Amino acid sequence: MTDIPDLTATEARAAIAAGRLSPAALMEACLDRVAAREPEVRAFAWLDPALARRAAAAAKDGPLGGIPFAVKDVIDTADQPSQYGSPIWAGHRPRSDAACVAAARRAGAVIIGKTVTTEFATRHPGPTANPRNLKHTPGGSSSGSAAGVAAGFFPLAFGTQTAGSIVRPAAYCGVVGFKPSYGTLHRAGMKVMSESLDTIGVMARSVADCALAMSAMTGIDHGNPAAKAPRAPRLALVMGPTADQAAPETLALMERVAEACRRAGAEVVPLDLPAACAAAVDAHPHVMNMESAEAIGWEVDHAGAQLSPVLAERMGWARTQPVAKLVEGRIAFAAARAAYADALAGFDAVLTPSAPGEAPEGLAWTGDPAFNTLWTLLHVPCATVPAGTGPRGLPLGVQVAGRIGEDAATLAWAGWVQSALG
Amino acid sequence: MTDIPDLTATEARAAIAAGRLSPAALMEACLDRVAAREPEVRAFAWLDPALARRAAAAAKDGPLGGIPFAVKDVIDTADQPSQYGSPIWAGHRPRSDAACVAAARRAGAVIIGKTVTTEFATRHPGPTANPRNLKHTPGGSSSGSAAGVAAGFFPLAFGTQTAGSIVRPAAYCGVVGFKPSYGTLHRAGMKVMSESLDTIGVMARSVADCALAMSAMTGIDHGNPAAKAPRAPRLALVMGPTADQAAPETLALMERVAEACRRAGAEVVPLDLPAACAAAVDAHPHVMNMESAEAIGWEVDHAGAQLSPVLAERMGWARTQPVAKLVEGRIAFAAARAAYADALAGFDAVLTPSAPGEAPEGLAWTGDPAFNTLWTLLHVPCATVPAGTGPRGLPLGVQVAGRIGEDAATLAWAGWVQSALG
Repeated sequence: MTDIPDLTATEARAAIAAGRLSPAALMEACLDRVAAREPEVRAFAWLDPALARRAAAAAKDGPLGGIPFAVKDVIDTADQPSQYGSPIWAGHRPRSDAACVAAARRAGAVIIGKTVTTEFATRHPGPTANPRNLKHTPGGSSSGSAAGVAAGFFPLAFGTQTAGSIVRPAAYCGVVGFKPSYGTLHRAGMKVMSESLDTIGVMARSVADCALAMSAMTGIDHGNPAAKAPRAPRLALVMGPTADQAAPETLALMERVAEACRRAGAEVVPLDLPAACAAAVDAHPHVMNMESAEAIGWEVDHAGAQLSPVLAERMGWARTQPVAKLVEGRIAFAAARAAYADALAGFDAVLTPSAPGEAPEGLAWTGDPAFNTLWTLLHVPCATVPAGTGPRGLPLGVQVAGRIGEDAATLAWAGWVQSALG
Repeated sequence: MTDIPDLTATEARAAIAAGRLSPAALMEACLDRVAAREPEVRAFAWLDPALARRAAAAAKDGPLGGIPFAVKDVIDTADQPSQYGSPIWAGHRPRSDAACVAAARRAGAVIIGKTVTTEFATRHPGPTANPRNLKHTPGGSSSGSAAGVAAGFFPLAFGTQTAGSIVRPAAYCGVVGFKPSYGTLHRAGMKVMSESLDTIGVMARSVADCALAMSAMTGIDHGNPAAKAPRAPRLALVMGPTADQAAPETLALMERVAEACRRAGAEVVPLDLPAACAAAVDAHPHVMNMESAEAIGWEVDHAGAQLSPVLAERMGWARTQPVAKLVEGRIAFAAARAAYADALAGFDAVLTPSAPGEAPEGLAWTGDPAFNTLWTLLHVPCATVPAGTGPRGLPLGVQVAGRIGEDAATLAWAGWVQSALG
């Protein structure tokens, strides 16, 4: 039998609904696991076990009733500090919950704690290690959320993605990550950096858990990806504009995944994306960094010495770029969205790498979002599902992407692909 | 000679640059005006004259160097409370400036104070009166910003618009209001309600001042609307899907404006908008209120008794609506954008009412945004310019709208229209 802290949210909900598990017992099991492994994993930016216990004891009924849910620390919580991975915000206690946290609590979720984010969800890492191998990064920027789901600290967590901050860490840690269509989860109360890109999503131990959480928070039916699909999909196999950055294990993985999907009945057709997609990926650093430099204008101007050197350098770079680069970048994004929609005609979804390879060694760098920026700027839903391990025994993920607004279908096909992998 | 507090920002900047006026003297003149009229106008949600004086004395050089700039109280300021027009946020002091405030300060602007907003920029009004007739509303939700610019308290102010919250109050108070293309001014640090709609903009005493402020804050050249245009425009005269809500003075105004533009050489062609625009206007209340109910989910759940009855009722309504209404509404908005872009082919800009008529009597209602929601949801730039008065002697405005991203052209044609009105 699965240990309690390793239950999926769906399994835990069933146990709670059946009276076999109480929210308090579930929280206690999670906190036991945290006590055992947090000293080496360091997933939490803030954890008050007494507060978590009280919240679990008072858990409401609902679709997420009693489920421990962790919150990336770029998202505000009324009862816990929100420090955005920056010393500038040390000790900051928001008055209110972010919109997505309020939605999760309304559905019965129990906010267990705040998870480590890189500095303002940018490059400079926090202390979190990959629970699958502590010498390796868990990825970022949603480092603590991915690591905590993998370690059994909580079954659900919020992440956010501006480049590759949900899908990449989820893949590195061997869990499921889901970035919804842009705008699905309201960003009020999030420390937004890039308005054009920042997207709130979830991490979990199964695709069905992502659907459960999204349905519960939005009221939009995200389906049941664990249900048997009525047919096999037609999938576009996309290596994309950054294909040359795929490690050998990723090339082998994509062949293996394509073959498994074909064996399960799918049609898998290699697809070269239109040139507008590559142009948009090229424009991504300008839009992301120039918008971020606007967002943290106060921090740059009044607390610049407390920025990491890498962020200070990036924000300085952004401020010296011609503003035309930002304007043109947003136009390039819109062009890519239109071209992608055309290119995907006749396909159910895209199969594409989640990351260049396994999680890099060391905690100084959270890895390369090369295989993520496109799907973020396209605003399309995308999910990574675990797909075995690489040469060093670390998890690999494969990513399934869909069309704007077709989040339920994207989750359904991600579930189908995971089943096909066996 | 114009009294110092009534100078445009452009005039004040010229005087400061020439050494004829100091930022401190400008601020003092504004504070004198405030002392004389604020007791009856009540434009400020927060004003600390000593703080404003210190900021003026320390004013930096820059394109807005030394210009008093007021901030609608849904936008955060590090040195002043930000209370969002709600008792729930009484005494709230943010740690940081909003992105747009940081940008204004960086350009040299002096933040004079916080201006009254309706509750969370929704319907429930603040105490502000229309400086042109104290028995009448100044409009809202950017009530204090519009009233204060009109009263000579400050030459520039931030507003925000979700339905008609910049253009309508500016028209009611006889000032210029500019809502940029959606996304132009970063919303970090704003109390965002509707992510699909909320747009930060500016109010001023001239179109040129709007361009000055926008150029200074974004780095994007918004041109000089005071310069002579190389040619006369081709204008679409649009009464739009809410034409039947125009008061007689507005119908007469539009005839008068069209005739004046023709006399000045413009081609003015009545244009019926495609049906997609009316459908999108119909969907606006669902998107606005359902997204707002997500945004203030914490307030609704934890401080519901401190909401106004009208907002509590609206948020309750929003939570009972089928989520499909939200999803379909966003799709309707996108369809309207595409249809509008096609319909506007061959035109330079749109001429359309800024409001149904003069400012309504009484302070209990800030008026109807019927002529504003379309331009907000279309994400297009639009400006209102003063255009005489109505039967009760209150200001009327006429609105000029353009295409997404063509903000400089929209301001230029707004300036051209104002010149044509003589």
